[in-house]
Amino acid sequence: MSQNIYDRPEFFEGYSKLPRSTGGLDRAPEWPALRAMLPDLAGRAVVDLGCGFGWFCRWARENGAASVLGIELSEKMLERARSEPSEGIEYARVDLETLDLEPGTCDLVCSSLAFHYIADFGRLAAMIHGALRPGGWLVCSIEHPIYMAPSQPGWLVADDGRKTWPVDGYSLEGPRTTNWLAEGVVKHHRTLGTTLNTLIAAGFAISRVEEFRPTEEQIAANSGLAEEVERPMFLLLSAHR
Amino acid sequence: MSQNIYDRPEFFEGYSKLPRSTGGLDRAPEWPALRAMLPDLAGRAVVDLGCGFGWFCRWARENGAASVLGIELSEKMLERARSEPSEGIEYARVDLETLDLEPGTCDLVCSSLAFHYIADFGRLAAMIHGALRPGGWLVCSIEHPIYMAPSQPGWLVADDGRKTWPVDGYSLEGPRTTNWLAEGVVKHHRTLGTTLNTLIAAGFAISRVEEFRPTEEQIAANSGLAEEVERPMFLLLSAHR
Repeated sequence: MSQNIYDRPEFFEGYSKLPRSTGGLDRAPEWPALRAMLPDLAGRAVVDLGCGFGWFCRWARENGAASVLGIELSEKMLERARSEPSEGIEYARVDLETLDLEPGTCDLVCSSLAFHYIADFGRLAAMIHGALRPGGWLVCSIEHPIYMAPSQPGWLVADDGRKTWPVDGYSLEGPRTTNWLAEGVVKHHRTLGTTLNTLIAAGFAISRVEEFRPTEEQIAANSGLAEEVERPMFLLLSAHR
Repeated sequence: MSQNIYDRPEFFEGYSKLPRSTGGLDRAPEWPALRAMLPDLAGRAVVDLGCGFGWFCRWARENGAASVLGIELSEKMLERARSEPSEGIEYARVDLETLDLEPGTCDLVCSSLAFHYIADFGRLAAMIHGALRPGGWLVCSIEHPIYMAPSQPGWLVADDGRKTWPVDGYSLEGPRTTNWLAEGVVKHHRTLGTTLNTLIAAGFAISRVEEFRPTEEQIAANSGLAEEVERPMFLLLSAHR
């Protein structure tokens, strides 16, 4: 059973106040890059793994998806998702560690910043591959392993003001416990190679690998994003069956 | 024209003394991992891009390759390669930036630690793809972008002895000038995503992505390798047409 961090009051309260929680997809800086990796949704059966408040589920329906299934472990997030208009959207509370989608039933599986909470990515990748119809797509974002690896994940600032990201333990895969919105948040670090090789072993063909870099326009509008050029925080992947 | 750093006397002298130069493939810690990514060579037409002293060319012939073509820019390295037994091996002095192999003529293109000297990787990847027969393979190693990105590529040591690798400028692709064996060695930093997407755009299917990590046995035999677990120095890729 995965850690259900999102239902802890202090985490949920903090998460609910993030721009991407209050303002949806357009407040997530990596969304334009992820959106550009999506196939045409018209008439497609779409699944969102770790759907949170349902922002992507609703966007997929508005953009032509025939049906959308949102999977989420957090009761509180599902409750809020269900309080929004959800015609054509089905939500289910299932742990991604044990989820079994029906084989050959979907065209696109999406997941935003959820897979780094999963310990057994090999099982999940194989299940997703099986759930897709031939030609179907997986498009996902995860925390970048450069971001996740360090034993002390925080910027170092040199005397001249240069900021560097102190990478250590990159090849030491396994749990990383951080204090983000709450204490003791457990993520599972995998190298970029392991993530890609796991997808390839499951039968996927890798289509695109994006290490999110904010655009000049995004940095001009939000100077806090400038540091994302120094080291990638998000890894965006697309693969097809 | 690429910088021909290997023919500068101070560089060549230093390079000639490296374990991998004096002892060949078995002295390169990443070789077992790279070898494991190679297809069976029996009867194959093999090309080695940046063949150096010809260690891999000779190994390929000894392991059944029908023919081997070694491409190298350094006159001094080619001279030494040609002084070794080379039945079935042809060497040619060509800049990888302008090399044009005959389309559809080879089964395996290998390259060890050469592509990070190349400015136009897109041209090279497309040329390699065209040179391969359908089903042919590209297996290569390059310096890892985590290793190459930093403006000041050297370990930081914290008060508690913890070593970290100070990543900055990861998303700023382009030349990186370092002093390795000689001053002013120019390498071309590309993100891991760019390298993979360039291969995919050229028509390759990605088969495996290894971020080299030394084994416990290797570290026991050479404690200097322990730091390679903290951040990857080499990226190993295999792809097929």
